[in-house]
Amino acid sequence: MPLKLYALCGADRTRPFSPHVWKTMLSLAHKGLAHEVETVGFTQIPKLEEGFSPTVPVLRDGDRLVRDSFDIALYLDDAYPDRPALFSGEGGRAMARFVESWSMTTLHPAVMRIALVDIHDMLGPEDRAYFRQSRERRLGRPLEEVVAARADEVAAFAGKLEPLRAMLKVQPFIGGQGPLFADYIVFGALQWLRVASPAKVLQDDDPVAAWFERCLDLYEGLGRGVRAA
Amino acid sequence: MPLKLYALCGADRTRPFSPHVWKTMLSLAHKGLAHEVETVGFTQIPKLEEGFSPTVPVLRDGDRLVRDSFDIALYLDDAYPDRPALFSGEGGRAMARFVESWSMTTLHPAVMRIALVDIHDMLGPEDRAYFRQSRERRLGRPLEEVVAARADEVAAFAGKLEPLRAMLKVQPFIGGQGPLFADYIVFGALQWLRVASPAKVLQDDDPVAAWFERCLDLYEGLGRGVRAA
Repeated sequence: MPLKLYALCGADRTRPFSPHVWKTMLSLAHKGLAHEVETVGFTQIPKLEEGFSPTVPVLRDGDRLVRDSFDIALYLDDAYPDRPALFSGEGGRAMARFVESWSMTTLHPAVMRIALVDIHDMLGPEDRAYFRQSRERRLGRPLEEVVAARADEVAAFAGKLEPLRAMLKVQPFIGGQGPLFADYIVFGALQWLRVASPAKVLQDDDPVAAWFERCLDLYEGLGRGVRAA
Repeated sequence: MPLKLYALCGADRTRPFSPHVWKTMLSLAHKGLAHEVETVGFTQIPKLEEGFSPTVPVLRDGDRLVRDSFDIALYLDDAYPDRPALFSGEGGRAMARFVESWSMTTLHPAVMRIALVDIHDMLGPEDRAYFRQSRERRLGRPLEEVVAARADEVAAFAGKLEPLRAMLKVQPFIGGQGPLFADYIVFGALQWLRVASPAKVLQDDDPVAAWFERCLDLYEGLGRGVRAA
């Protein structure tokens, strides 16, 4: 039985946008593991696999269910040690946590402040109501207010990637000469923005843009298979 | 013959302050390698080992000379593979580059804007003249102007550590359950500030402060051996 990944989509089920699901889609391709993808809307997630997880990605591998993109990557390296490594050693497992924390605290809030209304507008009617209510409760204000300073956020976004830009002077991927899960962590954030929003946050000659293009090319253009918003 | 490390000091030769030298001092302790330390002022560096390097740390190991804290760490793991690893695998080597870039682009400029005049004032007379001239040329303005917004920089500093703070919810060190070179990279930046400046940038109950204290405790309190400014 092939593996099965539950992925998040809006009204158009061909356009997965969740940053965390993208991390797992690249992880599965990295390991070369055949899998099917079942796309769901926000409000379907709690019903999946008898309420296994409040969030996606969720991966089913035979009898085993795993949730959370980082835990799925750890699971895949443990369960398929003969396939290409996603972490490449204990140090890589640990330091990928730092990359994840950097992406979550630096990039994700900025993507939200740019693309929150775009994401809302991608959703089907039921999911829109859920999304607006849950996000407005979490953020303490209307979605439209969160994206009010959108132009400033777009202008500031490239600056937040300065650590990656500096690193790219030394090596082409966060994983070194080739990509590792740490690359997919940061790719997920930028792909989320690319699929959800037409905002242009990187100049074409930015080394970070070149790295992102390299990631879009991976695995026969898996990421590029969903066109930009 | 024991290893020999060239370290940077001001007028008081018992107070090494260079962030990069601190990374190497912790690296040598991590590997359990006996070594002597020769302290030098800024203007002595170009004369060391027949002009081997414009910067410290420089490590002599028998006939071998190595410069740059990251390259020294790579050298130590290659030359002493039976000692505790500084990177713990290929993934760790690669991702430590991201931690270095983050520290250099986020923390180092902030430490400069807080402590530049403090650092100047620690130096001997010859080194003061060199330091002022080289830094003012690099920064394009007087040292005193760079630190003019010092209070704002001190207030903003803790926020820059948010990626580390978030990661510390998952594990006690960037290296995972124990420290690796990636921890020493970030430790170096904070130790530089601690030795040079009385500025208090972290609240006592900050998880980052607790991590820094853990790092100060390592190797019989090596970092704590130099008292705070």
